[in-house]
Amino acid sequence: MTNPNICGIPYEDFLIRMEEFHGYRSPGMLLGGFMLDRALLQLGSTPYLNVVVETVVCLPDAVQLLTPCTIGNGFLQVLDWGKFALTSYDRMSLRGVRAWLEQDELERYPLIRNWFERTGRPREKPPFERLSKEILSATDKLICRRKVRLHRSLKDTKPVLTGRCPTCGESYPLRLGSACPACSGKAYYEAVPGTGPG
Amino acid sequence: MTNPNICGIPYEDFLIRMEEFHGYRSPGMLLGGFMLDRALLQLGSTPYLNVVVETVVCLPDAVQLLTPCTIGNGFLQVLDWGKFALTSYDRMSLRGVRAWLEQDELERYPLIRNWFERTGRPREKPPFERLSKEILSATDKLICRRKVRLHRSLKDTKPVLTGRCPTCGESYPLRLGSACPACSGKAYYEAVPGTGPG
Repeated sequence: MTNPNICGIPYEDFLIRMEEFHGYRSPGMLLGGFMLDRALLQLGSTPYLNVVVETVVCLPDAVQLLTPCTIGNGFLQVLDWGKFALTSYDRMSLRGVRAWLEQDELERYPLIRNWFERTGRPREKPPFERLSKEILSATDKLICRRKVRLHRSLKDTKPVLTGRCPTCGESYPLRLGSACPACSGKAYYEAVPGTGPG
Repeated sequence: MTNPNICGIPYEDFLIRMEEFHGYRSPGMLLGGFMLDRALLQLGSTPYLNVVVETVVCLPDAVQLLTPCTIGNGFLQVLDWGKFALTSYDRMSLRGVRAWLEQDELERYPLIRNWFERTGRPREKPPFERLSKEILSATDKLICRRKVRLHRSLKDTKPVLTGRCPTCGESYPLRLGSACPACSGKAYYEAVPGTGPG
């Protein structure tokens, strides 16, 4: 059996690009690529394509490799929901197609199930070759999709009013409060003493 | 004057890759590329490179193009702070270098300043050629960097306990509550009546 195309890209090429961009051959990106393929097929062609992914893991990279939507250009939105699901939509009409996995079907695919289900224990990782073979055989059963309408476009297009933080002097969006997030106690870093700027 | 390399990539090649990935030649990605270049130079070589960006705009794409860190592989973290700043760090030692823009210096670069400062009005966009020339001349004055230590690694490595949402039946992280985010009132979509799955 010939391997299928994914969003118009031959399977083998997708694996190579995946390794280049994501760092390794990832079951999540493969399954995510098929979900995206199915969602885009049902959505049809649009010049106003946006995608929402509902997890930070793997799916954002599948979308960034296979569509013009990236996080930095604003056409990909990433929700940190821990859900392996995505929605492709037209940001003008707000019509979209959401794709997710049919949990009941997972029973039939032990390798995918073991990879997908997280029990709180570190997971065993079967070789990609075995897992990808199961994924290729499972896509039609496992991937659900449904037409949806979005409540609003998730791409932020309003101009943002910015100003300088009175504490650090850096620019930040004034709607966030009287100081920037770092100076309001959310800093993820501390300056190393004795090293000035430069 | 020869155009410089950015993270080891010739300037012209970076612009081409930028157009391919991000969709257009972006001043933010160019300036962000230089910030990253400076931060990585000071950090030095590490097999455990992670990057944090403090805005969803442009910077994530510069990092994803110029380093092995992507959002989907977990080595890039994206904070939606609206701050044009980034930190490259070693996730083992937690030592890093943060790069940001010197606001006081912006006065001297009217095109960059006009592009960067948001006053609440839609911005005028000067041609990329003019803006990029100013960026190339400004990097040494405009980009600040400082050694920092991170409070903790921002890459989530703990296994996540998941279960099925009692409402939609999809898998979600149980720590988020008794139902998944979509079924807890955060859904960004509604099903289109009359279209079942499939």
